[in-house]
Amino acid sequence: MKLLAYSFRWLIFMFLFVALQARSQKTETYKYPPSEVVTIHSKILNENRKIYVHCPKSDSADINKRFPVVYLMDGENHFELLSQYVDYLSRPDVSVMPKIIVVGIPNTNRVRDLTPTQSILDYEGKPDTTARYKSSGGNEVFFEFLKKELMPVIDSNYKTQPYKVFAGHSFGGISSINCMLTHPEMFDAYIAVSPSFWWDNEYLLKLTEKKLKSGSTLNKKLFYCDGNEGGSDSFFHKALVKFDSLIVEKKVVGLNYLYKHYPNEMHMTVPVVAYLDALRFIFKE
Amino acid sequence: MKLLAYSFRWLIFMFLFVALQARSQKTETYKYPPSEVVTIHSKILNENRKIYVHCPKSDSADINKRFPVVYLMDGENHFELLSQYVDYLSRPDVSVMPKIIVVGIPNTNRVRDLTPTQSILDYEGKPDTTARYKSSGGNEVFFEFLKKELMPVIDSNYKTQPYKVFAGHSFGGISSINCMLTHPEMFDAYIAVSPSFWWDNEYLLKLTEKKLKSGSTLNKKLFYCDGNEGGSDSFFHKALVKFDSLIVEKKVVGLNYLYKHYPNEMHMTVPVVAYLDALRFIFKE
Repeated sequence: MKLLAYSFRWLIFMFLFVALQARSQKTETYKYPPSEVVTIHSKILNENRKIYVHCPKSDSADINKRFPVVYLMDGENHFELLSQYVDYLSRPDVSVMPKIIVVGIPNTNRVRDLTPTQSILDYEGKPDTTARYKSSGGNEVFFEFLKKELMPVIDSNYKTQPYKVFAGHSFGGISSINCMLTHPEMFDAYIAVSPSFWWDNEYLLKLTEKKLKSGSTLNKKLFYCDGNEGGSDSFFHKALVKFDSLIVEKKVVGLNYLYKHYPNEMHMTVPVVAYLDALRFIFKE
Repeated sequence: MKLLAYSFRWLIFMFLFVALQARSQKTETYKYPPSEVVTIHSKILNENRKIYVHCPKSDSADINKRFPVVYLMDGENHFELLSQYVDYLSRPDVSVMPKIIVVGIPNTNRVRDLTPTQSILDYEGKPDTTARYKSSGGNEVFFEFLKKELMPVIDSNYKTQPYKVFAGHSFGGISSINCMLTHPEMFDAYIAVSPSFWWDNEYLLKLTEKKLKSGSTLNKKLFYCDGNEGGSDSFFHKALVKFDSLIVEKKVVGLNYLYKHYPNEMHMTVPVVAYLDALRFIFKE
């Protein structure tokens, strides 16, 4: 009996000990600056599209303040990174860029939406025997979706300024440049991180040569870059150098461009450093 | 009457039009990879401390997998950035570092916790006439909080490996180096982003000279850096160069160090590029 009473007292003591320990520590969910997922039914693409939107906190001093917008391809890869950069770099105590809205567009069919032509050629110019490039060539339809369906939704639901940036990596990089060449009215600035110029026998380099007239006017900002994607002798780097020479040669009036080469970055890490530099270049006051 | 019926029909049409429009678009909250806020009552600091914890998604192939931990000072400034870097860089298709746990420590009294000595001298070595440095000199007590209160909570609630990194910027940078010199048993690696070596007449440079014995052994990794904080002639940069010379001179066995100078970054943008390089340096396989 004495032993039982002892055990009981001991149990109560242990219970209180654990309860007090537990009370001295509380766990909640961390609150990130909120972003939204907007689902749009696109008649043009005949599918539902999820769109990620990150807006600046509304400024109590100016609740009607409107913001430039970055439309970012491969939303599933780089939306959080870009949103984080924007939040940090636009903080009052950092203040190297203004607050902007980030619109991330995740893919449903990446090859279809983010290539300028129908082609099954691989990066060496040889026919790809898998079916992976079969659906390619949808850039034009994708741009129509952006212009007629996505942009109106964004402009009517968020406090947007007219200033728009188009940003992409790899296939997204060639899409960004293709859009500048074929629909210059859609965006004010372009970011092309490691663009896949090899696409369809360097189709886009030929298009650049054809579309960008020497001495013509194009009031845009353009950031393009590459990493160490096979070294300085690689087709990847050579194509970027070729594009850069074209841009320099053409002396397009009003085109404010920056080419950056990141020899220490590989294809999947280039976006991390490049988007940081690109945002600062485009939004430099 | 006919007019009324017409208006009514028109109203129904408009209602359906708006309703259908609305239905074609749906907005939800974007889900960031979850992080937690743990509130700990610290007896050592005699206050409650909120702690931010970001954990890798549990790996279904190995649910018992354990992870290294980065303890990050100034949690309110750089916790989201570091968490984002870790998530992206450890993705299977990027894979330049392993998955790790990020523990962000936001400040309650930054000057108290993140300075090694009691001093009211400003960066020019002159007495500061405001009260801002009055509470300084609490590094030792802060380290005790980390060791005796915070680390046990983290280790008992999360799947931690013993490998620990201590990371800080500015005052956090000197705290990181001070901890390496005075409590080398606490961490395996140190990140000091733009450390404020000017503190208390370069107290920490003197301590480094004294504590790091030539040819002694210290099996640690150490990353330190500075930006353009007043130019190459500034006391800030000179102090970093002096620290770097000490590290090179002492030839400490087992100390794997990297000094990076970022001339294009200012004091508040250095962390963005430095934490990226530091994580890759420390977790390079």
